[in-house]
Amino acid sequence: MIPDKHPRYHSLVTREKLAQCARSGIVSLEGLTAHGRGEAFDYLIGERTTESAHIAARIAAAMLISARHPVISVNGNTAALAAQQIASLQKASGAIVEVNLFHRTEKRVQQIEELLRETGSDVFSGEAERLLPLSHDRAWCRRKGMYSADVVLVPLEDGDRCEALVRMGKTVIAIDLNPLSRTARSATLTIVDELTRALPGITSACKEISEPECRQLTESVDNHYLLSEAIREITLRLCHAMD
Amino acid sequence: MIPDKHPRYHSLVTREKLAQCARSGIVSLEGLTAHGRGEAFDYLIGERTTESAHIAARIAAAMLISARHPVISVNGNTAALAAQQIASLQKASGAIVEVNLFHRTEKRVQQIEELLRETGSDVFSGEAERLLPLSHDRAWCRRKGMYSADVVLVPLEDGDRCEALVRMGKTVIAIDLNPLSRTARSATLTIVDELTRALPGITSACKEISEPECRQLTESVDNHYLLSEAIREITLRLCHAMD
Repeated sequence: MIPDKHPRYHSLVTREKLAQCARSGIVSLEGLTAHGRGEAFDYLIGERTTESAHIAARIAAAMLISARHPVISVNGNTAALAAQQIASLQKASGAIVEVNLFHRTEKRVQQIEELLRETGSDVFSGEAERLLPLSHDRAWCRRKGMYSADVVLVPLEDGDRCEALVRMGKTVIAIDLNPLSRTARSATLTIVDELTRALPGITSACKEISEPECRQLTESVDNHYLLSEAIREITLRLCHAMD
Repeated sequence: MIPDKHPRYHSLVTREKLAQCARSGIVSLEGLTAHGRGEAFDYLIGERTTESAHIAARIAAAMLISARHPVISVNGNTAALAAQQIASLQKASGAIVEVNLFHRTEKRVQQIEELLRETGSDVFSGEAERLLPLSHDRAWCRRKGMYSADVVLVPLEDGDRCEALVRMGKTVIAIDLNPLSRTARSATLTIVDELTRALPGITSACKEISEPECRQLTESVDNHYLLSEAIREITLRLCHAMD
């Protein structure tokens, strides 16, 4: 039991939730460590949605609602942390929800699909093929799902797969708390924010954006600027900490 | 299998090693997430021992060899990542090695003690009592071990326990990659470095330091300065990344 007076109570409770999902198989053990990396960067941006992340979420919404074939790629950590927020975003954006795992087993794919369905997502499943130019299990995806997508939202992605999707000509939206990661740098657009804050932000924006604003936003993507802003926020906080 | 061409190969292999130790019970699932936090900060300091961390390691060595009753506190992550380095440091410093866990069960304590003995440590075990002023299982320690220590090395510690040990009047040396953490700020001395780099650094210094240098080092402890230097290193790297 985590004492509720612990100054990192919220963070410890989330870790316990992920640990439970690891025991049931939804989250891989390596996924727990990956979550910790994210936690550290969230701490550095002040555990809040920055102004630049807010802008990035609006651009992401514009990309998703103007896409021909948008896909939301879901892994174990995303399902464990934000299954309901994924369902809401699917409703608001009309995107396909597809499970793609780094540590892939058929059993894990089914468990995660079940969790997503239980929480209201319409999951695109069926036979997967090795369609992405990658050397590990993340090469697997579905021909009429991610393989045919023009816009892909990849929360908590690894750099390899993000780069491969960009090279395939897709518009890739990453949600990644590390503004220095290969994922963040190679994506078309990166939202440097924590998943359960970023997803509702995109969902709200999907409902609000008018057609002219949508055009304007998709034409104004400057990922380098957005990442620089995220890095600037972290640097500012570190400088304050030194005083 | 992690492809050996993966740019984060080393980091992924360490994660897998920890995941294996989690399967066997040595590492807690929460410990995997904590490791990820450390990974992120290591990435930010450039995955190398900085000049200030090098100085901190020398001061730590001086503190340990001049102590009356030095204790090295070992938890699951420390045992999984650095059992051999702990044994070497024990030989060089003459410190007591004692297991203390956040997620404490008798079984885990025994498993970790066994791992430490197999890799060459002389482990101080025996009956533990609730001796530290803390509300969770980290209150447990041994009367003639950590409770009687004048100097305690706490690698990968939580903030609560570090603060409690300092309040008990002990000299606390932390190894913590996050220079902003409560552990880093409340310890007498913090080495902002990755565990498997920091421990051999302390061990070498234990063998090299002369008595006059030892006195000089223990009189020159300025943890605030060392932490500021670590933060400055991170900030510099972030500024370069923005260019």
